[in-house]
Amino acid sequence: MFERRVTISFGQCDPAGIVYYPNYFDMFNTSTEALICEALGVHIQDLALRFDIFGIPMIEARNVYHRPSRPGDNIVIKSQITRIGRSSFDVYHQLFGATGDLAVEGFEKRVWAVIDPENPKALKGKSVPKELRAQLD
Amino acid sequence: MFERRVTISFGQCDPAGIVYYPNYFDMFNTSTEALICEALGVHIQDLALRFDIFGIPMIEARNVYHRPSRPGDNIVIKSQITRIGRSSFDVYHQLFGATGDLAVEGFEKRVWAVIDPENPKALKGKSVPKELRAQLD
Amino acid sequence: MFERRVTISFGQCDPAGIVYYPNYFDMFNTSTEALICEALGVHIQDLALRFDIFGIPMIEARNVYHRPSRPGDNIVIKSQITRIGRSSFDVYHQLFGATGDLAVEGFEKRVWAVIDPENPKALKGKSVPKELRAQLD
Amino acid sequence: MFERRVTISFGQCDPAGIVYYPNYFDMFNTSTEALICEALGVHIQDLALRFDIFGIPMIEARNVYHRPSRPGDNIVIKSQITRIGRSSFDVYHQLFGATGDLAVEGFEKRVWAVIDPENPKALKGKSVPKELRAQLD
Repeated sequence: MFERRVTISFGQCDPAGIVYYPNYFDMFNTSTEALICEALGVHIQDLALRFDIFGIPMIEARNVYHRPSRPGDNIVIKSQITRIGRSSFDVYHQLFGATGDLAVEGFEKRVWAVIDPENPKALKGKSVPKELRAQLD
Repeated sequence: MFERRVTISFGQCDPAGIVYYPNYFDMFNTSTEALICEALGVHIQDLALRFDIFGIPMIEARNVYHRPSRPGDNIVIKSQITRIGRSSFDVYHQLFGATGDLAVEGFEKRVWAVIDPENPKALKGKSVPKELRAQLD
Repeated sequence: MFERRVTISFGQCDPAGIVYYPNYFDMFNTSTEALICEALGVHIQDLALRFDIFGIPMIEARNVYHRPSRPGDNIVIKSQITRIGRSSFDVYHQLFGATGDLAVEGFEKRVWAVIDPENPKALKGKSVPKELRAQLD
Repeated sequence: MFERRVTISFGQCDPAGIVYYPNYFDMFNTSTEALICEALGVHIQDLALRFDIFGIPMIEARNVYHRPSRPGDNIVIKSQITRIGRSSFDVYHQLFGATGDLAVEGFEKRVWAVIDPENPKALKGKSVPKELRAQLD
């Protein structure tokens, strides 16, 4: 379980005065990367090189929005890996708003990816390393 | 069916050299708004006032990523309303990459929303207007 | 002098692997708002209402870039008001990179603004309140 | 002189209902890249490789804001190179708002940059190629 606190900025909000919903995916991405890098004991700048991967691109991202957040709100994001397959893994995020209520849930399916040797413009999965797999146990 | 063409910009891409995945939600939001405003014959600045709503916030947004896109890629986004409920509606987006392949699919569930009279910080649904409902038929 | 620490996220960086330069303006805006709200003892959501203003829009924003920053870099932003005129004020930001060097400088000229009564689409200046003016002394 | 048309999206605007000012730098960056790539007859994905450079990072970026723009506004951006030095060059942008008035001006100073061989985390200038220099004449 990885937790971090964020203060919603004016620039993350839209003309309706609430967080522009794509920005929650950005917040969740930051949490996932911090979670993965902490679990693997690696700096994000070294992740690709150390594990010889392209990165951890998204296969499927889904957010469910329960309540809006606004500029200056102090929110909490809790994140955890919920499944690790052969070359993919799932992450679940909960964002709690200024009043402590569950405001947004995020569901990610990512792949531990390398460049496809048969097509340099495409990506393909590679076995998730045991160091990451160990985190789920 | 609403269609628009977009050239991927450098600023939409991340250190992996591909579109940063939250930005697809931003692209799809622009398409949904253009689709709704065209369907209703209303300028986006007048949408809230004309229909006496807060806006059309997202309840659930899900993207499925098939292929990455890169700076300068000319992509096409096709969007359509796929369901209209009492106060919510679904939009489906298909993004075709530089080579014409289906690169990203987007699934949105939005609400035709007003400010909750019992809680000014919350939102609640209102009946989708018949003008929009007519679009699906 | 207002100071805050930021960890550069992957999403703030571009295909060159460094912070996409427009994002420094976003970081500086967050610092300016925090600085102003702290100085005035007001929550950002109450700023416009409490002082009967539209906001504090930018007249001129200039950044000078000395060194790039990268994902995961822990940077420090120091910000201060450097001038207060009748209805405008200047803010100066210094961003220190992961190695402690001055990486980016920001110069802002903002206006304490209301909606122009003669043109609701335009803005005009209003006297900066004495509470803010007192901060410079 | 390079010209392009943009429709302001909801996501580019902030709780004040106007374009969030850092986003103008993003719009101008897209124009500069299109201008440079058109001038050099190169696709943006090939720019770095073809000219053996890191990229064209910003040394100094300054915007002057005359009028706000709002969601759905159709704006025009006109851009031109105004100076080419040994390893740096200047670009000037004019953004005309929905009513045709000059709304934002942008002034860029960029460098034709390679990675510093003595410090792989830093950048240094390289002679601007004659193909680009020819564009100013």
